[in-house]
Amino acid sequence: MLKVEHIGIAVKSLNNSNKLFASLFGADHYKIEEVVSEHVNTSFFKIGDTKIELLEATDESSAIAKFIEKKGEGIHHIAFEVENIEKEMERLSKEGFVILNETPKIGADNKKVCFLHPKSTNGLLVELCQEL
Amino acid sequence: MLKVEHIGIAVKSLNNSNKLFASLFGADHYKIEEVVSEHVNTSFFKIGDTKIELLEATDESSAIAKFIEKKGEGIHHIAFEVENIEKEMERLSKEGFVILNETPKIGADNKKVCFLHPKSTNGLLVELCQEL
Repeated sequence: MLKVEHIGIAVKSLNNSNKLFASLFGADHYKIEEVVSEHVNTSFFKIGDTKIELLEATDESSAIAKFIEKKGEGIHHIAFEVENIEKEMERLSKEGFVILNETPKIGADNKKVCFLHPKSTNGLLVELCQEL
Repeated sequence: MLKVEHIGIAVKSLNNSNKLFASLFGADHYKIEEVVSEHVNTSFFKIGDTKIELLEATDESSAIAKFIEKKGEGIHHIAFEVENIEKEMERLSKEGFVILNETPKIGADNKKVCFLHPKSTNGLLVELCQEL
């Protein structure tokens, strides 16, 4: 794994949280992106080499809406950049990790992504991502 | 804020989780450190420029024991490296963030640290840290 590419944070209101995190980081978000397939609006901040991705549900069917209902606002996932996502999925599957999608899907920020089930990773929702 | 210095993950057994995360990252932890004042044992992994810190409680009075009892294993905090922790604490306090300690304390990995209350940061436990 190459680096922590981003940390995803579930928020109720992107508008309110954009202001809060700008005040925390001392710098504004640099982009907003809607991921229609995932039913989320996202905004991105950059701290050093790592991005912070705020995630707001666009409707109740979104995984983010369900996460907030169950656990409240807070860290949703950590994304690690990998060189070859298919190879890494194969390696991790052999190691016994539970991969939530069979093949990579297209996520935010122009990336191929997949997720590992938190039950196999100490309660952590892990995303693997590779630049398209 | 300079970078995401580390991500802290609360685990029940450092021994078991060291194996699990070594298998996830494809690389072993590079050090173990006990922080007596915080009642935790920690281990460190390095992914790119960011550390992953596993935290195991050494007794029931530890914040990590209470966290796991309430929320289960998982991400406990995100630590941002800052240039001048005292100045940053002053800036954030003026911005309305609730700082959990009045002056920096000595944390793991040879650092001055302080924490912001999650209620003021969208459910996120934020650590600021500065190399000693």
